[in-house]
Amino acid sequence: MRKSIATVSVSGTLIEKLEAIAAAGFDGVEIFENDLLACSMPPEEIRARAADLGLTIDLYQPFRDFESVPDDLLARNLRRAEHKFQLMERLGTDLLLVCSNVSPGAIGDDDLAAAQLRTLAERAAEHGIRIAYEALAWGRHVNEYLHAWRVVQLADHPGLGTCLDSFHILSRGSDPIGIEAIPGEKIFFLQLADAPLLAMDVLQWSRHYRCFPGQGNFDVAGLVRHTLNAGYAGPLSLEVFNDHFRQADTRRTARDGMRSLIALEAELKGATRPPVPSGFAFAELADTGALGEVLSALGFVRTGGHPTKPVELWEQGGARLLLNATGAAPALVALGLESPDPAGAVKHAESLLSPVLPRERAPREARLDAIAAPDGTQIFFCDDSWLSDFAPDPDGRAGGEITGIDHVALTQPWHYFDEAELFYRSVLGLRPQGSLELPDPYGLLRSKAMSARDGAVRMVVNIAQVGAGDIPWQHVALACDGVLAVARRLRAEHPGLLLPIPGNYYDDLQARYEVDPELRRLGVLYDRDEDGGEFLHLYTVTVGRVFFELVQRIGGYDGYGAANAPIRLAVQHSGDN
Amino acid sequence: MRKSIATVSVSGTLIEKLEAIAAAGFDGVEIFENDLLACSMPPEEIRARAADLGLTIDLYQPFRDFESVPDDLLARNLRRAEHKFQLMERLGTDLLLVCSNVSPGAIGDDDLAAAQLRTLAERAAEHGIRIAYEALAWGRHVNEYLHAWRVVQLADHPGLGTCLDSFHILSRGSDPIGIEAIPGEKIFFLQLADAPLLAMDVLQWSRHYRCFPGQGNFDVAGLVRHTLNAGYAGPLSLEVFNDHFRQADTRRTARDGMRSLIALEAELKGATRPPVPSGFAFAELADTGALGEVLSALGFVRTGGHPTKPVELWEQGGARLLLNATGAAPALVALGLESPDPAGAVKHAESLLSPVLPRERAPREARLDAIAAPDGTQIFFCDDSWLSDFAPDPDGRAGGEITGIDHVALTQPWHYFDEAELFYRSVLGLRPQGSLELPDPYGLLRSKAMSARDGAVRMVVNIAQVGAGDIPWQHVALACDGVLAVARRLRAEHPGLLLPIPGNYYDDLQARYEVDPELRRLGVLYDRDEDGGEFLHLYTVTVGRVFFELVQRIGGYDGYGAANAPIRLAVQHSGDN
Repeated sequence: MRKSIATVSVSGTLIEKLEAIAAAGFDGVEIFENDLLACSMPPEEIRARAADLGLTIDLYQPFRDFESVPDDLLARNLRRAEHKFQLMERLGTDLLLVCSNVSPGAIGDDDLAAAQLRTLAERAAEHGIRIAYEALAWGRHVNEYLHAWRVVQLADHPGLGTCLDSFHILSRGSDPIGIEAIPGEKIFFLQLADAPLLAMDVLQWSRHYRCFPGQGNFDVAGLVRHTLNAGYAGPLSLEVFNDHFRQADTRRTARDGMRSLIALEAELKGATRPPVPSGFAFAELADTGALGEVLSALGFVRTGGHPTKPVELWEQGGARLLLNATGAAPALVALGLESPDPAGAVKHAESLLSPVLPRERAPREARLDAIAAPDGTQIFFCDDSWLSDFAPDPDGRAGGEITGIDHVALTQPWHYFDEAELFYRSVLGLRPQGSLELPDPYGLLRSKAMSARDGAVRMVVNIAQVGAGDIPWQHVALACDGVLAVARRLRAEHPGLLLPIPGNYYDDLQARYEVDPELRRLGVLYDRDEDGGEFLHLYTVTVGRVFFELVQRIGGYDGYGAANAPIRLAVQHSGDN
Repeated sequence: MRKSIATVSVSGTLIEKLEAIAAAGFDGVEIFENDLLACSMPPEEIRARAADLGLTIDLYQPFRDFESVPDDLLARNLRRAEHKFQLMERLGTDLLLVCSNVSPGAIGDDDLAAAQLRTLAERAAEHGIRIAYEALAWGRHVNEYLHAWRVVQLADHPGLGTCLDSFHILSRGSDPIGIEAIPGEKIFFLQLADAPLLAMDVLQWSRHYRCFPGQGNFDVAGLVRHTLNAGYAGPLSLEVFNDHFRQADTRRTARDGMRSLIALEAELKGATRPPVPSGFAFAELADTGALGEVLSALGFVRTGGHPTKPVELWEQGGARLLLNATGAAPALVALGLESPDPAGAVKHAESLLSPVLPRERAPREARLDAIAAPDGTQIFFCDDSWLSDFAPDPDGRAGGEITGIDHVALTQPWHYFDEAELFYRSVLGLRPQGSLELPDPYGLLRSKAMSARDGAVRMVVNIAQVGAGDIPWQHVALACDGVLAVARRLRAEHPGLLLPIPGNYYDDLQARYEVDPELRRLGVLYDRDEDGGEFLHLYTVTVGRVFFELVQRIGGYDGYGAANAPIRLAVQHSGDN
C-alpha cells in the first residue's frame, strides 16, 4: 500500500520535513497548512521539491469551519476556499481535507451542511479538486464518522467523499465496523494515529498524545482492516501530534513513522511474528577494571578471552557477561540475544529500518550481525557459535547462586520513548508489560517493561528527566536462586559493594508484611504481588553508568519491584553509596 | 497564621527539603511517608533535625485504604496502623492523615466506615495521636468533603476530625460554603493547592498539575475564608504535586510556596493591592554596538549619557532605552517600571520574598532599588528622578513614529513558569491575560501575557523547550503610530533589518481578510480580533538574544498577534534573517 504522512507529524521546517519523509521511504505527504505558511518557498517550488524527492502531495489540510453556517458566512467561506483552490493548483494537489465545524455558531442541520458541502464540491470540481469531509471528535454537531458519511451521502456529489481518522474514531469509542458500510470509493482518505488510553478532554488528548500505530493502545490495524474491506485503495497516512517529536530529530521521527506503517502492514498481511529471542546470550560491558572486581565479588569467573580483542568472558550459571577493555568508561554497550534464526532476525530488523551495524570480523570469528537499539546499544542475534570465539579457560564455568540474566534496563531520551516501545515490540517481538511513573528526588522516571517467551527475555526502558539532564544509569539484573545467601556473603566479604537500604524502609515493610527480619540486616528489598508471588532483590553500587541487581522470583512473580525503585533512586542520589 | 508545607511539594532528599522549607520561613511540615522511607536517618534524628531548623512536624501522611473493609482486613490494617503510631511517636508528631479508601474492595457503608475509624482513633489515642480523615476526590465511596465529615460525625470520637484539601474539594466543583457547617475544632487540618482548569481525570490532574495558590484558577482564598469562618485555627499547609518542581531547585520552590501563602494571607486580610506600575520607565539592554545601530535605524536618538557608567539613554517618543556597554552580549538586562510609590513597591516585593538586589550608587545618582524577576532580569521601580542621572543631550528627544514601549517579552525555564505567573501577579500586581501554546519548528512554546492599568504595562513570559535547550530570545515591542510608514522607510533605507515574512503567509491572509496589499510588500503582519480590533506588527532580526517588534493597536485590540508567532518563529529558525 502507498504510505503517506502529514508534515505536521515531524519537527523542522517544511523543506527539512519533506527531505526526512522522503529519506524514510514514504510515497507521499499531506501538506499541513501552517507548515506551508511559514515556508519562504512559493508553492510551485515546494511542488517541485516534493517531486524531486519522489513524493506526491496527497492532501492539503485542514480547511476549517466551512459548513453549517449562515448565508453571509458561507459567501466568505467560499471566497476563502477559492484562495485555497488556487493555492492547491500551484501546489499540484487535488484533495482538500475539510474538518467538521467546531464553531459555537455552527448550525445543527445536516441538510444545510450537505447543501453547503455540495456547493463547495462543485466549486472545487472547477479546479479539478475533490473534498474529503472528516468528523473531528470534538466537532460541534458532526463528530462521529458515520454522521460525516451521512452528510456526504446527502450532499451526493462525486467530488465529495469522507476522510477517516483512526484517532477521531477510536478516541470516541466508536465501533469501526461501520466503516464497511461506506463504499470504498467514497472513502477519499485514511489518516492513522494511535494513542495511549487516557481519561482526558479529547482535544488535549489529540494534540498532545497521538503517536504512531503500535505505540499506543488503539487497535489501529483492526480499523484499517475494516477500511480495506470497504474497498479503500488510497494511502495509509500518518497524522500525529505530541510534545515529544517536536523536539526530536526530524529524520528519526520519519523513520519511526515508517517503521510503524511497515509493522502495521505486516500485521494486516497476517505475517508470522518475528523470530522472537529465546534468552540472553550475553551482555557486554565496557570496563576499565572496576567491573571485573564487582563480577569477581558476585561469584563470576573469567572463563575465556577473545583471541584478537581485549574482551573477556565471565560466567556464572547461565549468566554470561563480556568485559570489553577498550578504554571506554563502564557502561553497557551490547546485548546478545539467543535467536532461533539469527539471520532471519537481522533481516526482519532491517525490513523495519533498523540500521545493521558495520562490523569488522577476523577470519576465525563467528558471524554475528548487530543492530542498534534506539539508545545506541548494539543488539546481536546469536546461536551458540559465538562462544567459539573465546578460548576456553581451564577453570570452566562457575556454579554459584546466579543462574542467568533476568532483565536488562536501558535508558532513553524522553522524546524517543515511544520509538523504543515500537522498536522492542516490532523488531524484537517483545510484548509490553505496562508503563509506570516513579518519583525520583530530582525528577520523575517513566519506566516501561517488555518481555518475551514467558520472561525468558525481559527488557526495561527508563526515561528520566532530572534537573537539566537525564539519568544515565543502566543495569543488568541477574537471576539468583538464593538472594539471601548471596547477600550474607557479600555483606560479610565485600562491605560497600551493596547499596545500603534505609531502616525506615524496613519499618514500613514490617508494617505491611510479616517478613524475615534478616531482610533488614542484609539490605534486601522485598515485593509481593496480588497472587502472593514474591520478589527479593538487592543492588550493587554504581560503577560508571552501570550497576547490577540480583533478583529472586518466587511463586510466579512477574514484576520488577517497582514499588522499591523510588527508595533505590533516593539512595543512589544521596551519595551514601 | 502558621504556615506549613508537605515535604512532597519540593524536590530533593528529605533533609534537603527540610532545610529549604525552614530557609523559606515555614513554621512546620507535613512529613510525606515516601520521603521518610527513602531517608537514611532514623525518625529520632529527623525529629531532631526539624527541631534544630525550627520546624514543627504538623502531620504524618498518608495512611491509605484503612476504613470500610471486611473484618480480617481491618485486623491487618490496625496492625499496620500500630506500626505507624510507633513511628510517629519516634518522629514526634501527633496527627495522622487517613485518606478515604480507594480500593475496589471497599464497602460503601458509612456506619462501617465510622465504626472502624472510631476504633482507629481509640488505638491512636493510646499513643496521644489524633486522626484527620480526608475525602480524596477519587475515593471509592467517600469523595466529597461533607461526606467525610458525616462519617467523622457518626464515629463521634474526640481524636477523630476531618482534613480539608482545597484541590479535592474544588476539583470536584463542590461548593466550599459547606465548610462553615463543620465546627472549627473538628477541622484538624487544611491542605492548600491550586490548579489550572483542565478537563481530565481528577487523579492525573492532581498528580501532575497541582500548583501553589495563585498559580492556577481555583478560588483558594475563598475556601480558606470559609474554613476560618468555621473556626479553624490550625496551619495553612501547602500540598502540591506536578512535573515542574520535581526538576526545580528545592529552595526556590519552597520560597515560591511561601510567597504564595504570604500573598494569600494578604488577600484574606483584604490588604490593598500592591503599588501597581503605571508604565515602562525604560528597558536596559547590554550592547556591544550592534543594538545602537538598530536603534538609530528605528529612529531613536541618543539623548544622554550616564556620568559615571558606560550607559547611554536613547529616546523616541515615550520609549526610553538604555544601552549598557559593559561588554556583555546583547540582551535585555533590566526594566524600569514607573511606580506611584517606588519605595512601597520595593517593600511590597521584599515582603513577598523577592530579593532586593545590592546596588552600587554614586553620590549623585538617583536612588533606584531593584528586585530580580524570576528569569534574573532586574526590575527597577522609579519615579522621574532617574532621568537626572543622564546629562541631557542638546539634540533632545526625537519625535518619530514610535511612541513608547508596548510590551516586553521575557523567557523562562519551563519548570519556573508557575513561579513567574505568581511573581508578576503578586509582586507587580499584573493581571493574567491568558496562556497559549504555540508550535515552533523544533518544539512547543508556552506563552503567558500579563498586564496592568489597561495595558499601560504589558509583559509576556515565554517558555520553550526546543531540542535540548530553551529558546533564549527576549524582545521589546515598541508602540508605533504608523507601522506601515516605518516599514516603508526601513525596507528602503535598511534592507536586512526587518525579518522577512513568507509570501505564503500573505496568500493565506488574503484568503481570510481583505487587507491592504502593501502589507505583503512591506512584510507587516496582521491580526484581527472578534470585535474588529486590528493589530499591525513587524519584527527586526535578532541581535544577540534580543529583537524588537513594532506594533500598532487599532480599535481596542488587546492581544499580541499570537496567531502570527509560529510564522515568526519559523523564520527566526530558518536562518533567512
